[in-house]
Amino acid sequence: MTSKQNKVLLTEVALRDGSHALSHQYTVDQVAAIAKALNDANMPYIEVAHGDGLAGSSLQYGLSKTNEFELIEAAVSVADRAKIAVLLLPGIGTVKELKQAASLGAKMARIATHVTEADVSAQHIYAAKELGMETVGFLMMSHTAQPEKIVEQAKLMETYGADIVYVVDSAGALLPNQVRARIRAMKQHLSVEIGFHAHNNLSLAMANTLAAIEEGATRIDGSVRCLGAGAGNTQTEVLVAVLERMGIETGVDLYKMMDLAEDVIAPMLPVPQEITKGSLVLGYAGVYSSFALHAQRAAAKFNLDARDILIELGKRKVVGGQEDMIVDVAAELAKAKTFA
Amino acid sequence: MTSKQNKVLLTEVALRDGSHALSHQYTVDQVAAIAKALNDANMPYIEVAHGDGLAGSSLQYGLSKTNEFELIEAAVSVADRAKIAVLLLPGIGTVKELKQAASLGAKMARIATHVTEADVSAQHIYAAKELGMETVGFLMMSHTAQPEKIVEQAKLMETYGADIVYVVDSAGALLPNQVRARIRAMKQHLSVEIGFHAHNNLSLAMANTLAAIEEGATRIDGSVRCLGAGAGNTQTEVLVAVLERMGIETGVDLYKMMDLAEDVIAPMLPVPQEITKGSLVLGYAGVYSSFALHAQRAAAKFNLDARDILIELGKRKVVGGQEDMIVDVAAELAKAKTFA
Repeated sequence: MTSKQNKVLLTEVALRDGSHALSHQYTVDQVAAIAKALNDANMPYIEVAHGDGLAGSSLQYGLSKTNEFELIEAAVSVADRAKIAVLLLPGIGTVKELKQAASLGAKMARIATHVTEADVSAQHIYAAKELGMETVGFLMMSHTAQPEKIVEQAKLMETYGADIVYVVDSAGALLPNQVRARIRAMKQHLSVEIGFHAHNNLSLAMANTLAAIEEGATRIDGSVRCLGAGAGNTQTEVLVAVLERMGIETGVDLYKMMDLAEDVIAPMLPVPQEITKGSLVLGYAGVYSSFALHAQRAAAKFNLDARDILIELGKRKVVGGQEDMIVDVAAELAKAKTFA
Repeated sequence: MTSKQNKVLLTEVALRDGSHALSHQYTVDQVAAIAKALNDANMPYIEVAHGDGLAGSSLQYGLSKTNEFELIEAAVSVADRAKIAVLLLPGIGTVKELKQAASLGAKMARIATHVTEADVSAQHIYAAKELGMETVGFLMMSHTAQPEKIVEQAKLMETYGADIVYVVDSAGALLPNQVRARIRAMKQHLSVEIGFHAHNNLSLAMANTLAAIEEGATRIDGSVRCLGAGAGNTQTEVLVAVLERMGIETGVDLYKMMDLAEDVIAPMLPVPQEITKGSLVLGYAGVYSSFALHAQRAAAKFNLDARDILIELGKRKVVGGQEDMIVDVAAELAKAKTFA
């Protein structure tokens, strides 16, 4: 139970994952102010992009208020110590956007794929390395795959040149012992650094983050004031406090992070990041937050409880891009109900 | 790491600890509606009282809108399955109020003392047992005492007749390994059931609750929608979901708890239960939430950061009732600053 390392490197994701919580309405002034405060608090990495990564701004994923390259530029301009990171989901973003981000001064590329589809990240990881960027492989929806499968996929990313591979609990569905098993297996079989990205849908973001660190993860994501998709991520300023209490160094200034959360972030939030019925059921079912609205519509159409649809989708391990299946599942559930 | 038991009994504290989040303004109608919904969801125990226990309504602790005996009566009248619990802090409440609560139908008495002062609970535990109540010893601010001390104090409560003894993390300051050490020591040395009551100031309420259960705690407190002092308690509906996922039975209906949280509790809340700068610093410092306002006043007077005062108070293990020390500590810090 004792932590093996006494130091972790944090990445603040409020300007990327947190963009979901603001319906992607960040302005240049907001991003500059937040990035400056994070830089002053000695945050090592600050991720800036649409919530669904570079080129995510679209009718399907939500239109950004501001062109993301203007936001990246604003963050780079105020960050004299922190490195700016970008997220790229192959299929949404391309190498073209990655090059543009690098040319603007982004120093870290995080290439994200579904946990079983690491092979689609190859060309993007190669490109990021060629651009001289520190490169992360980001295995999303990691609760849907067993540790052995995750090791296999992480090894692909390692082979492509990733410097770090993350276990990403996109739906906030992992339990602490499941996080342990995944990180432990990766530590045994990989040479690169291991990272962990939590969501708080089951109120386990902090528990899972500590479990990951105890098993050897050294790169950890947090979002100030919990600003992220679903119920948000591991709350950064709280994580800094907890790690300080545990004797694990982050180098990040606790008071400055608290002040940023309270004085800058909280007043910007349209609704606070509570664990609502909606986010809880997503974590319990283990499905993407983008499914919620579709499930509600299907529930209304077929006179069902949206929760039953989401839980069934979770059992079937439906992934992003398969939103069409929601109506099929609802129809089946309605039929089963009729004949029950 | 495997859980030793597959069943725990929950106590819902939103109508007692949660009363802090509503400045003790519960009405009879609200309590009746919430208690009925909890009863229908099969919650085994529902605690009803002022946030600081029976007779807590006062200028010092906050005046209740409604006489607490009317609230207890309302809860008893709708709870045909659930047992109504009351909290009593010797020094605030007396055996007289306990008798009245019992005569109205309260079936569980929770007698709460500072973790090193269990001896003051003797006559109240005797009285509760004589009244035929299931009786809990509630060791508050358990982060300020080592496991051996807690065992010693818990044994006193056991000797007085307590059926259950709780480790209470009043300030939300315990780390998971500290919870483990405390519960483990109690399991080794006591015959009674062990309970755990968390606060979420460090985002560790769920982590600590799972750690307690893994070490053998069988009685667990939760508050629906996190409704409690500081950053609130372990969020009950989320806990039910997590324990279901872990194969630990609570008997509580998940959907009904989610609906109660979303449809009844959330609209009542004056402010949502986020982890704010204020609640975070209390958990980090390990001091009571009642200290916050005093510290802010002292900070203004001496031109200090209130956080520095609270952290210093935590180091000195100042307890409830010692609010006068806050000004002394502030004066010392100001003096040290002047000469620094």
